[in-house]
Amino acid sequence: MCQLLGMNCATPTDITFSFRGFSQRAGITSDHSDGFGIAFFEDKACRLFVDNQSAVESPIAELIRNYPIKSRNVIAHIRKATQGKINLENSHPFSRELWGRQWIFAHNGDLHDFHPRLSGRFTPVGNTDSERAFCYLLDQLVNHFGYDEPSLTQIFDLLAEISPKIAEHGTFNFCLSNGQALFSYAVTKLHWLVRAYPFQPAQLIDLDVEVDFSQVTTAEDCVAVITTEPLTQNETWTAFQPGEMILFQHGRPIKTQMTHIARLERERLNPELRRITKADQY
Amino acid sequence: MCQLLGMNCATPTDITFSFRGFSQRAGITSDHSDGFGIAFFEDKACRLFVDNQSAVESPIAELIRNYPIKSRNVIAHIRKATQGKINLENSHPFSRELWGRQWIFAHNGDLHDFHPRLSGRFTPVGNTDSERAFCYLLDQLVNHFGYDEPSLTQIFDLLAEISPKIAEHGTFNFCLSNGQALFSYAVTKLHWLVRAYPFQPAQLIDLDVEVDFSQVTTAEDCVAVITTEPLTQNETWTAFQPGEMILFQHGRPIKTQMTHIARLERERLNPELRRITKADQY
Repeated sequence: MCQLLGMNCATPTDITFSFRGFSQRAGITSDHSDGFGIAFFEDKACRLFVDNQSAVESPIAELIRNYPIKSRNVIAHIRKATQGKINLENSHPFSRELWGRQWIFAHNGDLHDFHPRLSGRFTPVGNTDSERAFCYLLDQLVNHFGYDEPSLTQIFDLLAEISPKIAEHGTFNFCLSNGQALFSYAVTKLHWLVRAYPFQPAQLIDLDVEVDFSQVTTAEDCVAVITTEPLTQNETWTAFQPGEMILFQHGRPIKTQMTHIARLERERLNPELRRITKADQY
Repeated sequence: MCQLLGMNCATPTDITFSFRGFSQRAGITSDHSDGFGIAFFEDKACRLFVDNQSAVESPIAELIRNYPIKSRNVIAHIRKATQGKINLENSHPFSRELWGRQWIFAHNGDLHDFHPRLSGRFTPVGNTDSERAFCYLLDQLVNHFGYDEPSLTQIFDLLAEISPKIAEHGTFNFCLSNGQALFSYAVTKLHWLVRAYPFQPAQLIDLDVEVDFSQVTTAEDCVAVITTEPLTQNETWTAFQPGEMILFQHGRPIKTQMTHIARLERERLNPELRRITKADQY
């Protein structure tokens, strides 16, 4: 499996503190060492760095830890391969252009027997279930809205309709951004917090590093961090509920919705089902 | 304006030697210091590094000079801004997915009054004439071939039909790759060479660096380098003819075609026209 890290901010912010802790999990505090990737939006465009080396060993990850790229929307991913080879075309995050914006997607989980019909408008480059899900989501957006860009709320509503159907095929936790906002969805595991004025010190879990955010921020700063497992030990992280979708903008959750995943209900009524599917391996 | 660097190889090869010389032109031997970008294909996927700092000063360019990423198709670009702000969304090379492959495009030149009708399938993220031309080329490929991937020859033939029409709007020198091969086109200035067995030493023009390729290659290696201005002083570079399109695969030119650009003919007959258009500013 994999781990996800997302950041959505009111003002361009660098992610070096969170990424330092997160990247420890690529071989030191955990074994997510089959490549990594990170995307930084600047308005509608984005920079995507990927490497098939681990985020501990990769010179590209070392650059990211030391070169503070400021961004309002960031999505990072460290991989422990379960489906697809360890090569560039299977590295998250994935990117596509739609409505004159780059879209970035990273997924945590496994999908089984997920082979939706795609129009050809978005075609997977690699062979992961994750990129297939991303292409399917974007295909559905175009099918529904055509080439007129809808509002964030309209996009959120459609994603909240489609995502639980994909989650019928397995574990589907994701972060998705178009540079305006960050859409996040969890079936099994995702956590979030908001850092805002008055800022406090934060202490990483994976590395003996503390930052006093009150010393490096202004009152306008506001940062939402979304991650598979909490990154700090002295802050309060909120767990996503199974099936919860949250839209973050300007560093805060602005819309949440609980979606109904029929598979989870069936598994609750019959726990035996849960053991015989591989969907919730984690 | 800008400068282009492309590389097409028989076996995965690193571009550190050529990029060291090329990136000197981003502030030291020339003034192309308004950002840089470089894309490395690995099969159908690619890594794209861009920065709005110059290739001399950027920590990302420093990484590229020192981290030998091996690739069969590379496209790099250093920018001297003439149209569009110096920001990420206007940085070459540009990328899009088509037929399950990434496509990478970088342009040298200025296009005037070039506002083609686009279907929405590919929409510019930034506001350069270059990205507009890239979207138009891909749009035309989809219009013509639909979602069934054509052969390289079919793509070449269509590009050779469309490119001279775009060149009616100004200077249109480009490198384009889908990871299988590299398409290149020149109206005013582009040079190429092939390095193959028996390899020789090469001496950069922009930096006092020499590499003896016979010491670092095997008989299977074969590398085509395409660049705006020759990079080495002791090798023979061939200049593209005005309107020439060349397809490079496995490190060699495999198809060339002369296209007819009516504008160039008009300018030849009436040199006054050439002075009053800005198209050939270089």
